[in-house]
Amino acid sequence: MGTMKLAGVFAPVPTPFDEQHRLDTVRFRGALARWMATPLTGIVVLGSSGEAALVDEEESERTIAAAREGIASGRTLIAGTGRESTRATVHASRRAAELGADAVLVRTPSFFKQQMTPDALVSHYTAVADGSPVPVLLYSFAALTGVTLAPATVARRARHPNIIGMKESGGDVGHIGEIVSSVPPGFQLLAGSGSSFYPSLCVGVSGGILAVACVLPEACCRIFNLVRAGQHDQARALQQEILAVARLLGTRYGVPGLKAALRIIGCDVGVPRPPLPALEEKGVSTLKDALSRFIEAAA
Amino acid sequence: MGTMKLAGVFAPVPTPFDEQHRLDTVRFRGALARWMATPLTGIVVLGSSGEAALVDEEESERTIAAAREGIASGRTLIAGTGRESTRATVHASRRAAELGADAVLVRTPSFFKQQMTPDALVSHYTAVADGSPVPVLLYSFAALTGVTLAPATVARRARHPNIIGMKESGGDVGHIGEIVSSVPPGFQLLAGSGSSFYPSLCVGVSGGILAVACVLPEACCRIFNLVRAGQHDQARALQQEILAVARLLGTRYGVPGLKAALRIIGCDVGVPRPPLPALEEKGVSTLKDALSRFIEAAA
Amino acid sequence: MGTMKLAGVFAPVPTPFDEQHRLDTVRFRGALARWMATPLTGIVVLGSSGEAALVDEEESERTIAAAREGIASGRTLIAGTGRESTRATVHASRRAAELGADAVLVRTPSFFKQQMTPDALVSHYTAVADGSPVPVLLYSFAALTGVTLAPATVARRARHPNIIGMKESGGDVGHIGEIVSSVPPGFQLLAGSGSSFYPSLCVGVSGGILAVACVLPEACCRIFNLVRAGQHDQARALQQEILAVARLLGTRYGVPGLKAALRIIGCDVGVPRPPLPALEEKGVSTLKDALSRFIEAAA
Amino acid sequence: MGTMKLAGVFAPVPTPFDEQHRLDTVRFRGALARWMATPLTGIVVLGSSGEAALVDEEESERTIAAAREGIASGRTLIAGTGRESTRATVHASRRAAELGADAVLVRTPSFFKQQMTPDALVSHYTAVADGSPVPVLLYSFAALTGVTLAPATVARRARHPNIIGMKESGGDVGHIGEIVSSVPPGFQLLAGSGSSFYPSLCVGVSGGILAVACVLPEACCRIFNLVRAGQHDQARALQQEILAVARLLGTRYGVPGLKAALRIIGCDVGVPRPPLPALEEKGVSTLKDALSRFIEAAA
Repeated sequence: MGTMKLAGVFAPVPTPFDEQHRLDTVRFRGALARWMATPLTGIVVLGSSGEAALVDEEESERTIAAAREGIASGRTLIAGTGRESTRATVHASRRAAELGADAVLVRTPSFFKQQMTPDALVSHYTAVADGSPVPVLLYSFAALTGVTLAPATVARRARHPNIIGMKESGGDVGHIGEIVSSVPPGFQLLAGSGSSFYPSLCVGVSGGILAVACVLPEACCRIFNLVRAGQHDQARALQQEILAVARLLGTRYGVPGLKAALRIIGCDVGVPRPPLPALEEKGVSTLKDALSRFIEAAA
Repeated sequence: MGTMKLAGVFAPVPTPFDEQHRLDTVRFRGALARWMATPLTGIVVLGSSGEAALVDEEESERTIAAAREGIASGRTLIAGTGRESTRATVHASRRAAELGADAVLVRTPSFFKQQMTPDALVSHYTAVADGSPVPVLLYSFAALTGVTLAPATVARRARHPNIIGMKESGGDVGHIGEIVSSVPPGFQLLAGSGSSFYPSLCVGVSGGILAVACVLPEACCRIFNLVRAGQHDQARALQQEILAVARLLGTRYGVPGLKAALRIIGCDVGVPRPPLPALEEKGVSTLKDALSRFIEAAA
Repeated sequence: MGTMKLAGVFAPVPTPFDEQHRLDTVRFRGALARWMATPLTGIVVLGSSGEAALVDEEESERTIAAAREGIASGRTLIAGTGRESTRATVHASRRAAELGADAVLVRTPSFFKQQMTPDALVSHYTAVADGSPVPVLLYSFAALTGVTLAPATVARRARHPNIIGMKESGGDVGHIGEIVSSVPPGFQLLAGSGSSFYPSLCVGVSGGILAVACVLPEACCRIFNLVRAGQHDQARALQQEILAVARLLGTRYGVPGLKAALRIIGCDVGVPRPPLPALEEKGVSTLKDALSRFIEAAA
Repeated sequence: MGTMKLAGVFAPVPTPFDEQHRLDTVRFRGALARWMATPLTGIVVLGSSGEAALVDEEESERTIAAAREGIASGRTLIAGTGRESTRATVHASRRAAELGADAVLVRTPSFFKQQMTPDALVSHYTAVADGSPVPVLLYSFAALTGVTLAPATVARRARHPNIIGMKESGGDVGHIGEIVSSVPPGFQLLAGSGSSFYPSLCVGVSGGILAVACVLPEACCRIFNLVRAGQHDQARALQQEILAVARLLGTRYGVPGLKAALRIIGCDVGVPRPPLPALEEKGVSTLKDALSRFIEAAA
């Protein structure tokens, strides 16, 4: 039995809400159809940019089910199932598998930061991988969680047969290179920072789960293919072209920025759920400028 | 109609789990009976040290119901109902009220730290206070959440008729004094740091919600009463006596420490729920030493 | 031979520069005369708010000499002599002693933060205390330096015969209480945060080195005397009155704020030395407002 | 007049001290001769790893003079001249130029972090560039200083005729790419993190100032040349080979590690100056292992 291949670009898509802040599966299907018309390798639902923290268990399940329906069979569906407790994470992973997810992405628990020692994280991920019917991806997002998955900790779990890879959201590419050199060859590392996607590919990630790929999927996929083809100069140039948009979506505007950017390009996924505010006008026009400059550069 | 009085000491009690990590309401009732035999003003369930992040909605409700049964009518029951989304927080606050909570304690949302601007927090707390049938306490715990409730933000919400106070968990007593001076007279600020309870009382908090009060309730209440009586020298001396235990429970050992300390003094509330580990042996003996020294000093 | 007493309030005075950013000893003498007319216990020169980081060795010596001339014999002169290297710190402490300093205040080295282990700090302070002809005060200012002097590290050096005390600049009063409880009785701890001076006195500091005492020396001394006399209610009220000014000088405006505040009250100590900018107009008017409100409250 | 070219690899060499912690120019010349036998483009003296913070002005001058004597004319000598005050930085830059430095590297002032606004930094660097007889390099090392030189701030100064480039010590390669895209074409950015040298070259830096280049100069130069030649696979493999050594020298062991590593390979530059401790035995053997593995991989 071969391992699932994660090579390529994944879009960590937002979860649409309507004006009353209810889950909006109609808008979701429309947006998925749009992404299916691009060369994206797959879709991640209920990641950080999917506002997973703001939806309840029943809504999570409906989101996964809607995604499964809307995603062509050749593409991979990954569902975020990280919860603060180990038992809830196992439960959510089982439900995700039943609803058609091909793999689950499991963020480090983080509420009790100081107790999330390497041993505690290893126990957690072992239990989750043992309990999940589908393969597990580790997920480190230290800037949001305050918890670091050190290369040595990753290495301790990288040989578990049901842990096939990891998403690392930080932009420290030296650190990413260190993880690459710490894990066995089959372990698939995915970059989470769109602004350092090209250099991350240089040091050996197998692909990316990139918020900017929701908005500029073709460009992200082209960077991936250019590096595969050894055409580094063009890859670097294209990375520079998406940089401004990637930075705005990543660190500055977050989910409100992602939903605003999608609306700007004609893909309506509604507004963030409170307490997340909609992006204010100034941010919207900064985003518009960055998207216009990208289109000009690409033309 | 008068405002609910929050003067005194509250214990933010742990949620007992059995060896299979299931909610254990039998152990809970036993522990509550013990706290009811002390001069504590009230009980907080499902706060940070109640492992609220690790229980699901149904368990939350059973915990509040069990607490209401076990708490004498003269004492105040406060339930932690903070969730990441505004709508879930409102819903949890309504359920808590129905189950008998006298007030709710609402932690700042924190997953999307960078978007938790003063305006976003004001909107969130307004919606929660408007929707909650019982009074609301703001709750800031920046060391865990990375989100600060600035004095100016507190002041903007302190006159809402259904927001009666706030728990501030940090130990920066100058900051606490600044909040005291920013809010109207009736607004009740509660200290959350046991190691600075006495100096917090000095600058004007009306009481405390202190993890150390689960273990040493009498001493905490005596500090409160000594300050009321103007007996500062004795209050300071007693604060020094509880300091080592308070520090260990606060920053170093967290929930695993609190559950271990309770076990040491004969109050079995089980073990933490994974991924929270049980306190390792070295920590247990450090705690035993600190508790022994407290008992000697008090003798 | 008795230990030098450090009880009371010290002003960590700014170093005056003229419009060409040269050391201005004329302005300095004028300002010192003004402070000598107040009940301050002593003066600290070349502390953090003395812009020690911006003056060279020759200017440091002239500053200490000018201070010694301008300070009446009954008052204590403390000179900041912390340098990054141990040898330079010893040398500066010797020169300070020769020039009349009664004691030296030695900030933790901090450039190589990660190497400043407890052992490295203990070795550094031992060498400095062995080499200094006058008593040494430890000095921790973690918010600026990123280096913490843990209570256990302080305790390891608190019995050195030439280390008589410590300045702790942080506002975590629980931490201050922990240091108090870790050191032998004669060791004198001084608070460095004006916004938590009263609660710091409550937990046992022997006095304070407070930027706000440069501007409001009488009020700070009165807080000290009120606590000595057990008049806590008045002390708390007075602390509240100085709070806004203390906060602005402490964390928000720093040295530019201190020099601006002194100018507002008619004490001209010139402008900060570049790269430190002068306080911008908006800050000056915020400071004016806070000072006006203090005067009204005191009236 | 052409701009000085900074393409290639620079070694930021340690400053040798003898057993009495005195500047040891004899050892320095021996070490320089060794580096001159490698393909390094140039040498940086008195950078962070040159313990600049621990030497006085007279020693700084002797270090620069000794370096100038020991460095062949075809190689570039860069001297670190950043001081906390603008005037001292200008003075040190002039002296460095007189003593033969080809350019100066000017770290951001950092003691008064909160006041180091973009405007303050722009004023500082303008004054330094106006006053320095030789070209100036900006230098950002946020992990040590707590001060960030944002791309927009760099861009504001990148057209000053006497500012020819910048060293960025952080490992966030997306951030490095953003600086590259913010500055005019001639502005030369140098990477400061050896563990992300290869991906930094990918995004467009013109070279590196790398602590690991003191120990493994040939390997670092080869990575540079491989990228120039478009041989990315070999560059990536070589980066992986130096990674462990680079990480140890960078974040974990700092200057004590650098001096220990040089001793291990037979280049004696003495011990660090206190308060910097020598590397403890455990660290030495970890370094030995990493160096042995590098040699094996290279063989």
